[in-house]
Amino acid sequence: MTSTADSANPESTTTVLRRTAEYRPRRSLSTWLIGRPLPTADAPHQTIGKAVGLAVFASDALSSTAYASQEILGVLIAAGTVALGIAFPISLAIVGLLVIVTLSYEQTIHAYPGGGGAYIVARDNLGELPAQIAGAALLTDYILTVAVSISSGVAQLSSAYPSLFPYRVHLAVGLVFVIMIGNLRGVKESGAAFAIPSYFFVVMMILTVVVGLVRFLLGSLGTVVDPPAIEIGHAFQAVTTFLVLHAFANGTTALTGVEAISNGIPAFKEPRSRNAGITLIWMAAILACLFLGITFLAGQIRAIPSEQETIVSQLARTVFAGRGPLYLATIAGTTIILVMAANTSFAGFPRLSALQAGDGFLPRQLTYRGSRLVYSRGIVVLALIASALIVLFRARVTALIPLYAIGVFLSFTLAQAGMARRWWKIGHLAEGKEVKERGSTLRYGRGWQRKMLINGFGAVCTLLVMLVFAVTKFRDGAWIVVFLTPALVFVFFRIHYHYREVAARLSLEHYGPPPRTARQRVIMPISGVHRGTVAALRYARSLSDDVTAVHVSLDPAEAEKVQQKWQMWGEGIRLVILDSPFRLWIEPLLGFIEELLEQRQPNETLTIVVPQFVPRRWWHNLLHTQAALLLRLALLFRPSVVVTDVPYQLEDAEPGGRGARSG
Amino acid sequence: MTSTADSANPESTTTVLRRTAEYRPRRSLSTWLIGRPLPTADAPHQTIGKAVGLAVFASDALSSTAYASQEILGVLIAAGTVALGIAFPISLAIVGLLVIVTLSYEQTIHAYPGGGGAYIVARDNLGELPAQIAGAALLTDYILTVAVSISSGVAQLSSAYPSLFPYRVHLAVGLVFVIMIGNLRGVKESGAAFAIPSYFFVVMMILTVVVGLVRFLLGSLGTVVDPPAIEIGHAFQAVTTFLVLHAFANGTTALTGVEAISNGIPAFKEPRSRNAGITLIWMAAILACLFLGITFLAGQIRAIPSEQETIVSQLARTVFAGRGPLYLATIAGTTIILVMAANTSFAGFPRLSALQAGDGFLPRQLTYRGSRLVYSRGIVVLALIASALIVLFRARVTALIPLYAIGVFLSFTLAQAGMARRWWKIGHLAEGKEVKERGSTLRYGRGWQRKMLINGFGAVCTLLVMLVFAVTKFRDGAWIVVFLTPALVFVFFRIHYHYREVAARLSLEHYGPPPRTARQRVIMPISGVHRGTVAALRYARSLSDDVTAVHVSLDPAEAEKVQQKWQMWGEGIRLVILDSPFRLWIEPLLGFIEELLEQRQPNETLTIVVPQFVPRRWWHNLLHTQAALLLRLALLFRPSVVVTDVPYQLEDAEPGGRGARSG
Repeated sequence: MTSTADSANPESTTTVLRRTAEYRPRRSLSTWLIGRPLPTADAPHQTIGKAVGLAVFASDALSSTAYASQEILGVLIAAGTVALGIAFPISLAIVGLLVIVTLSYEQTIHAYPGGGGAYIVARDNLGELPAQIAGAALLTDYILTVAVSISSGVAQLSSAYPSLFPYRVHLAVGLVFVIMIGNLRGVKESGAAFAIPSYFFVVMMILTVVVGLVRFLLGSLGTVVDPPAIEIGHAFQAVTTFLVLHAFANGTTALTGVEAISNGIPAFKEPRSRNAGITLIWMAAILACLFLGITFLAGQIRAIPSEQETIVSQLARTVFAGRGPLYLATIAGTTIILVMAANTSFAGFPRLSALQAGDGFLPRQLTYRGSRLVYSRGIVVLALIASALIVLFRARVTALIPLYAIGVFLSFTLAQAGMARRWWKIGHLAEGKEVKERGSTLRYGRGWQRKMLINGFGAVCTLLVMLVFAVTKFRDGAWIVVFLTPALVFVFFRIHYHYREVAARLSLEHYGPPPRTARQRVIMPISGVHRGTVAALRYARSLSDDVTAVHVSLDPAEAEKVQQKWQMWGEGIRLVILDSPFRLWIEPLLGFIEELLEQRQPNETLTIVVPQFVPRRWWHNLLHTQAALLLRLALLFRPSVVVTDVPYQLEDAEPGGRGARSG
Repeated sequence: MTSTADSANPESTTTVLRRTAEYRPRRSLSTWLIGRPLPTADAPHQTIGKAVGLAVFASDALSSTAYASQEILGVLIAAGTVALGIAFPISLAIVGLLVIVTLSYEQTIHAYPGGGGAYIVARDNLGELPAQIAGAALLTDYILTVAVSISSGVAQLSSAYPSLFPYRVHLAVGLVFVIMIGNLRGVKESGAAFAIPSYFFVVMMILTVVVGLVRFLLGSLGTVVDPPAIEIGHAFQAVTTFLVLHAFANGTTALTGVEAISNGIPAFKEPRSRNAGITLIWMAAILACLFLGITFLAGQIRAIPSEQETIVSQLARTVFAGRGPLYLATIAGTTIILVMAANTSFAGFPRLSALQAGDGFLPRQLTYRGSRLVYSRGIVVLALIASALIVLFRARVTALIPLYAIGVFLSFTLAQAGMARRWWKIGHLAEGKEVKERGSTLRYGRGWQRKMLINGFGAVCTLLVMLVFAVTKFRDGAWIVVFLTPALVFVFFRIHYHYREVAARLSLEHYGPPPRTARQRVIMPISGVHRGTVAALRYARSLSDDVTAVHVSLDPAEAEKVQQKWQMWGEGIRLVILDSPFRLWIEPLLGFIEELLEQRQPNETLTIVVPQFVPRRWWHNLLHTQAALLLRLALLFRPSVVVTDVPYQLEDAEPGGRGARSG
């Protein structure tokens, strides 16, 4: 350490020295994996334009075209192949919903130029409880996005290479791990690295849809050659309202990821809100076209929803007449965009959990930034939970989907309701008056009624979809989310309560200056008399003149030896030998300490000095009883007692003594 | 604590107080499971007669009749059912070996009236290395006895009740657990509880054999009805020397447990050696008769060795004409004796490991006696390893047997070789002279040449059997033991080296009185300023006038707050703020400490006082960074530094302070 900046405060007598610690973080396996640590000053401040922004933030939303059509068809197939025909009208309804949600979010983007996720909007406008509900929904949703996207990406791969099918769980978990490492390194969202694969996917999908439509118009499209077998156990059921709603609910997964841009506005070039808004509309347009196109063509080629081969794969090989280079490029693009969609969650989850932790609703450790300036703990937590889900659901997209969209639509609803409430507040402000809230500034503006209506309508629509989803998919797994979300919210509030309580109890407000410690009594438990004991004794005597050594005797012969040696080496210090009839070690000692505490004078502190022997190899600890550790644990909850280990290392001498000579 | 016996030593000024700690061990799940703790004074000193002694110590040896014949037949079946005929001659050879081993051990019993297991005999006569080899072999053998006996017991059960077959691993592990609990309670070896089931087994087996022989002589025995299928995959092989030796080696498992009496001589009534010797001979006689009888009859009834039904079961239901009460009584007796054989190991393993630990070749913790005066750690270790083996080998006796007998015969060989060496030493003593060894006293006696010959012959025979076993069963699993035993011996010596080294380095011999600690410097790392910090500061100031507070700053805003608060609450104590550019917390602190250590004067000790916040619920720790713990771990190996945590409990006040007023 070199640079020392002396800044003795003139107001008080306290000397405060401030300096920068000069250390190099050590090289280790983790620096090799995730790169050398970055100083805090290196935090990035780049911004991106609309084209790159579309690529960065749209991957999650666009990737859902890879499975949304399939999820609709998967429900309808229960009523036989004829029922697949109603998939297209359902898609039209979903696109209608997409338009509403997009308009709603476009308004949010302009209202919260600092980034307005559902959590912030709900917190500022609806209160703590709705905010935590939104937080729980979003965190769940981020986790599920990773599980669903990666599983779907692996499903694309195994459609092209069926021999990979048995290994899809391994592949999926492996991919999660790779993305985790990448994010721990700090993959910058704002990178052209994202643009190429995203646009590659978009181009390939548009090509597939356009070629497909052209061949359909020319009448040369035909149907899928050798489609997968229909996976249905029971007899075909009728086309009921429930079935249609069920298919609709499944298809709304197409909307997942639409909110991503509203979280990431600060990353855009100025004028930020305008650029972000335009990007959002572009994204929605592409999403709508691809989704409609895929659903329409899938119906025409009579694609069969199946776990063995995805709809995208069936469509691509029909359109491109076989598994040629164009087919493979489409599959590759789809796989990559799905993996990148998972990556979006790896940006969102740690940021949101850090936000919630900062507000005291999650463990505070989540706010620490790791060696690469990212919220590493959040990243690792996300990877672990998502991997667990993948393993639990055997990487089956259809099994994961029922858990998925509830959280998304719950957060949509809360965000839009919050926005509606915000417009109402704005409408009731005096003109020219400004109110600063935590996430944005309120300022009266005209047309608030219209904006409130748009957001309010969005909130109602997404709420309805959420209810449809919860009801139609309840038995398939949606119940998990229905019960999990309140449980999470409960835990968040428990954590919050704990932090508030600790802060109150540790607070120095209205706290008188505490009395000084007048006197120290020192107790030194010894198991034998050796160099370590002698070193600890010397330390104990430097603390106080009132030192008592205590030997708990399990074996009379041993006690005799200790007593003899103590008379030689004990420096005249009092020794108490406690015979322990039940061969317990810690209980008699605790009893003795308790007895001393009862006789204690005010302002007297009892310090237990434990000679602790430190072996040279960690495994040597297995060969010694960890007395100091056990005693520390036993006394942790006892007030007015301080435990001090005096370590005695085998290589070197005792503390304060001979070690100095070699140094 | 009440009775205090003041015994101030007149020779020195040191006061030594001695008293008996008056505490009642707490009730807990473990006292419920294993009974209330026993005081050391309750150690049992009962002795037993020959009849009970036979029951107590013979269960291991006699129980091997339950599987030895089967293991011979299991090898021979590879050459077809005709080859089963040579099982009887092989049994005769094994009985010859039994006679030799019995005579050898009879001599050992008289030489070591204090108990002369292979470990003690080898240690006193052959040296440390052979003793540790014997120790390794015996410990392995004890573990395998548990695994084999319990597995075989469960096999008997599932022969009678085939529906239990799929649950044999669960049953076996459950039984090990029950026996472990029993031994932790302190099942006394010397109990009539042992006599009843042992004699029940002996009576049932003798009845089976006698009835079988009578029916054979009357010509009404017949063959097994509905025998199990022959489990052989490949074509029948020829009867080779290898096959015969293989079968012989398998059959020698009948000898396991013969050494048990020589370990337990102190338990016998006086004249101990005579009583123990007679018991040994009785045991060998019964073992020989049962083993020969079973093998002979198994051949006559054309019993088929099988995992599905044991030979004993086939024999019993043929002799008693069906699964009637006599059949069930035989199976029950066999199962019980096998479980009791495992129990013998639970007496032997902890005792031997305590012996080896006392000699410094195993972790010293194994010498501590638990709340019920038994070596509880040894008991638990044995149960865990044996259970692991049972799970690993799916409770299959035939799979475990190849690992089994090598250890037994290795210990036989070492014990007998040690005895031979002992006779040689005795033969070269002057008459009337006595030499005291650790386990026995050497005194010239006539006939030492004959005795040496008997033990020497025993050693050679058992060595040969061991080699035959190692070669013939090498591929089946004996290789595990061949490699494991030297590895264990190596570990034993490493442990021994560690203990010797520690003792030498801690020794106070030639150790001058160490210099006093002249001065304390205190460093107090703080993350914030709150009541806990203030309490710790007060403690730190009671240690020394030279106190420095250190705040590692990850966040400038936070540092500013700490600085301001410190000027109010820091009592004028110097504060150092270390800016940490890489957001690491412990490294800058260690660097700072290192710097101070370099400037350290001789006889100055550096004490790190860490305010440690103790939450009320253990899970609350997840919500706080464990700074004190991390720092302690990092500084554990650093000489001349002492770490003191000053705990701050939420309920109560700070150490030495307000807590006193409420107490």
